[in-house]
Amino acid sequence: MSSDRRPETLYFEDMPVGFRSATGSVTVDAEAIKEFAARFDPQPFHLDEVAAKTTFFGGLAASGWHTAALTMRLLVTSGLPIAGGVIGAGGDVQWPRPTRPGDRLTVVSEVIAAKPSNSRPERGMVTVRSETLNQNGDVVQVMTARLVVPRRPTALA
Amino acid sequence: MSSDRRPETLYFEDMPVGFRSATGSVTVDAEAIKEFAARFDPQPFHLDEVAAKTTFFGGLAASGWHTAALTMRLLVTSGLPIAGGVIGAGGDVQWPRPTRPGDRLTVVSEVIAAKPSNSRPERGMVTVRSETLNQNGDVVQVMTARLVVPRRPTALA
Repeated sequence: MSSDRRPETLYFEDMPVGFRSATGSVTVDAEAIKEFAARFDPQPFHLDEVAAKTTFFGGLAASGWHTAALTMRLLVTSGLPIAGGVIGAGGDVQWPRPTRPGDRLTVVSEVIAAKPSNSRPERGMVTVRSETLNQNGDVVQVMTARLVVPRRPTALA
Repeated sequence: MSSDRRPETLYFEDMPVGFRSATGSVTVDAEAIKEFAARFDPQPFHLDEVAAKTTFFGGLAASGWHTAALTMRLLVTSGLPIAGGVIGAGGDVQWPRPTRPGDRLTVVSEVIAAKPSNSRPERGMVTVRSETLNQNGDVVQVMTARLVVPRRPTALA
């Protein structure tokens, strides 16, 4: 049911329930995992291969926030060209398994709810469920986010 | 009801419902906001003061994922010295207002649920609600995270 031609810019009217989108990919190496962790999540299992072996993760793993940040990068640069930007009010994030060194991540998204704003006729709220997959198709993150999406100007009465 | 003396290392038994914790602080400048955005959330309102003026945010704002990552840093380095580390299975994140250049962030956390694992007697799941506040006491993020927390070894039969 997806259209063959993707609009260059997405407005609320372009993102009904069931609208699907996929991003390009990004590969994460051990250096990037450690660099992110040193800044934002300095724990042994994100910083050092040897120290990580005896932890919960059993080996070097990316911070969940690194996976989330890379997911955002993919959505912004190749996934959801929303007019006005990808602006989230919040949402739910789950990490069923960690991102590992060498993983190639891609994101597939689907709109699961869409509601025009009552108070702001120029906007709507769109709920998008985004799965971040590694190169094996394993899900490393599921995010359900509420996005602020402008309505198409011509759609306003 | 908080104890005067904080344990050096927190086990499941140290984190009952109502347990509270606060972190140190971190200040975010415009350069850090732009640097994070360039890597993970390259949108005008996170990258450029002038371009940001005409956007939803009305001025330069940190990516929500930057606020989340800084919150994690504070929790890991000064907030929750959990045995085995701060390991989240996922949770809910809300950004009621953005982090702005110059903001000084701190995090206050409270345990809102704690449940021993049925399948893994050496662990429990602890649900922590963490508010990230700026220097004015405004809430820039509310995160409710489910953490994997080891039980104190001596508490096992």
